[in-house]
Amino acid sequence: MKSNKTISGFSKWTKQQKIRWLKDELNLSDNVESLLLKFELDDLDLQSIISELSENCLSNYHLPFTVAPNFKVNGNLKVFPLVIEESSVVAALAKAAGYWAKRGGFRTEILGAEKKGQVHFQWAGNPEKIKHAFPEIKQFLVNEAHPITQKMEKRGGGVLNIELNYLPGILPNYYQLDVSFDTRDAMGANFINSCLEQFGQSLQAFFQRKPDFTGAEKEVEIIMCILSNYVPNSRVKVWVECPVADLMDNMEEARAFADKLVRAVHISRNDVSRAVTHNKGIFNGMDALAIATGNDFRALEAGGHAYAARNGKYVGLSEAEIRGEQFIFSMEVAMVVGVVGGVTTLHPLAKLAMQILENPSAVELMSYIAVAGLASNWSAVNALVTSGIQKGHMKMHLSNILHAFKLTNEQKQAVRDYFQDKAVSQSAVEEFLKGNAK
Amino acid sequence: MKSNKTISGFSKWTKQQKIRWLKDELNLSDNVESLLLKFELDDLDLQSIISELSENCLSNYHLPFTVAPNFKVNGNLKVFPLVIEESSVVAALAKAAGYWAKRGGFRTEILGAEKKGQVHFQWAGNPEKIKHAFPEIKQFLVNEAHPITQKMEKRGGGVLNIELNYLPGILPNYYQLDVSFDTRDAMGANFINSCLEQFGQSLQAFFQRKPDFTGAEKEVEIIMCILSNYVPNSRVKVWVECPVADLMDNMEEARAFADKLVRAVHISRNDVSRAVTHNKGIFNGMDALAIATGNDFRALEAGGHAYAARNGKYVGLSEAEIRGEQFIFSMEVAMVVGVVGGVTTLHPLAKLAMQILENPSAVELMSYIAVAGLASNWSAVNALVTSGIQKGHMKMHLSNILHAFKLTNEQKQAVRDYFQDKAVSQSAVEEFLKGNAK
Repeated sequence: MKSNKTISGFSKWTKQQKIRWLKDELNLSDNVESLLLKFELDDLDLQSIISELSENCLSNYHLPFTVAPNFKVNGNLKVFPLVIEESSVVAALAKAAGYWAKRGGFRTEILGAEKKGQVHFQWAGNPEKIKHAFPEIKQFLVNEAHPITQKMEKRGGGVLNIELNYLPGILPNYYQLDVSFDTRDAMGANFINSCLEQFGQSLQAFFQRKPDFTGAEKEVEIIMCILSNYVPNSRVKVWVECPVADLMDNMEEARAFADKLVRAVHISRNDVSRAVTHNKGIFNGMDALAIATGNDFRALEAGGHAYAARNGKYVGLSEAEIRGEQFIFSMEVAMVVGVVGGVTTLHPLAKLAMQILENPSAVELMSYIAVAGLASNWSAVNALVTSGIQKGHMKMHLSNILHAFKLTNEQKQAVRDYFQDKAVSQSAVEEFLKGNAK
Repeated sequence: MKSNKTISGFSKWTKQQKIRWLKDELNLSDNVESLLLKFELDDLDLQSIISELSENCLSNYHLPFTVAPNFKVNGNLKVFPLVIEESSVVAALAKAAGYWAKRGGFRTEILGAEKKGQVHFQWAGNPEKIKHAFPEIKQFLVNEAHPITQKMEKRGGGVLNIELNYLPGILPNYYQLDVSFDTRDAMGANFINSCLEQFGQSLQAFFQRKPDFTGAEKEVEIIMCILSNYVPNSRVKVWVECPVADLMDNMEEARAFADKLVRAVHISRNDVSRAVTHNKGIFNGMDALAIATGNDFRALEAGGHAYAARNGKYVGLSEAEIRGEQFIFSMEVAMVVGVVGGVTTLHPLAKLAMQILENPSAVELMSYIAVAGLASNWSAVNALVTSGIQKGHMKMHLSNILHAFKLTNEQKQAVRDYFQDKAVSQSAVEEFLKGNAK
């Protein structure tokens, strides 16, 4: 940067001031302002929705808004809206959807939708005394939070339970209020955090007011009040199954394929190097649907990967088995998503994505996201144990490479034909175009 | 959907055909086609870049393209380009950057940049015999892959090492070729997968050709060849530090704040419910910079969370301590990123993001991403142990809610003034606007 000095008040500058400062400080080309403008929406109302999602917005970052049809879920066909930059993911999902739609489709089962949060605090009294008072404390907290919870209660949700955990192994005199919530169709982050912060304040008030507690017992130090993205009790199971014989036209090939696929998935459940990449492929699908519907993919990722490590070893999330003559491919994954509020309600294309999904409830969306994860995983493992991953990737990779060259459609086709059976790389394409291909 | 039937050849339809089919099947409103068009770029060359990133692209999903200034990294000031939909993240990052720029800034240290991949195979011979032959096998594989690796070698990278792991506890006769790579400034996924698939083929050829191996020994079954997103040897350390007294104007407050922050971070290292959310906040920052620069955030997430679980327990990635009179806040995180190829090279705003970062190398970008992670974490934990997370969130939340209403700027300001010291919710805002506020 031209001047190695910090600046202040940047967020209050106009967009134009920000861009000009950047241009000047970083010697950006003169057309940066017009480039950024090209990525904005002409419709100013729509643009203000995107701009106001975040501080210091200079323009809009575009990702492809796509769909994959033929997702049969619990007997009903669905089109999945997907937003992702990785070129092979949508094609892989569409392929898995079509394949399984012919074999009964995906099945899902919700195993819970409980959300969690904690008030972390230290209190220096006798642990038995706080345990004894806890039923009263609980009632007090619930009453105090009523102004926050009443609307959610009318919608059928609210605070489900409050437990007290004493954890002196972590810190001296350390406790958690471990709170579970039902937030209905909302992801519920604001609701949960507002409740927890209220609980923290009320907890302090309780000890201050109560004459049973004296001296140091009157003091509660609230360390923090915050929801948890670890949600093992908000969980969905998803699976596909069919007779082994139906996997391929030829019975012998079908058996060999199923057997190899089961071994590949078994490896992902026992080897961390493979498990991480296996799950990464699952999240390719899950995140694409989460982003399209305005959901927070970092929450999904954190909760999902931690769930993969829940038994002390990080493992692949899916399982494959042959039970008798039946092939079964399944997954259980923990997540929380919302269908009201936040970006889902604000972003016009997230709203459209919800319409494409026929306005599912939160648990239905959770099922679809799990389906997208298993479908993505199916295509990846399928490719890995048959033709290898590169064949499909390379087709898309070639399209990307071709962009760097100004070619006619005929020339592009000539490159595609040539590379049908050859390894694709930037340099190989350059060589071919120079006429040096071997 | 109107017809509960699968369709075929969807990817080959024109965009218009796809949209009309969706409109018809899902009873979408008549303006869906014009809405989707509004989100496309007027510049057709630019639009084709986005469209060709993925199959079945119907439009572009817009996310705010933002910047946060004042990131002092190893003594140099940087502006971070950030793409994220969560409203408080950019403000939090900018705040952390400004705070630490005044206190020495962020320091980083690269602890490795080794990428990994495996050939998973089964071979039914005597394990000692394959181990004995392995130096020869290794040389054969390296020679055979030369056409793929030569360009990378000219750039100073290539295959670093190939090890043979025998893992009969996972599957009978199961081995891995565990391969490490240096892919320089590329993320290297295509390079690594192409090498590994070649190794798989060459391994089979080796046993077929070699007269020392007979009968069943001639057969190698390749289960799969694939890079690993588990990259504990591609790792960066990032930290900030300053005298405890410099954290706040008042010495007593500074000490209490530092002490509380250390306890909060300690909890994240010992309690999984907190660890997951703690790390989720780290990835808010990391992903925002990764997306802006065209990097694959699913790879970062998978590798990072698995690294958090590497010792058998999922823990928070950052650490805080007071050493003598010095406060130190640090993190080690494993990741692989690229600065050439893929979306980074294709997407005009990813290219601009790279220019805003002054065209860093891959390891420099890795450092910046880690800085964004630690900065995000700093702001989150700081807020949690002081005013609570809701205060900052609610300001942004209110902006989002206000979008749902058609209000003048004066009316918006009146709402903001009223809610300065009150809990924000959709319904509370509605009440206020109806004039029913208590």
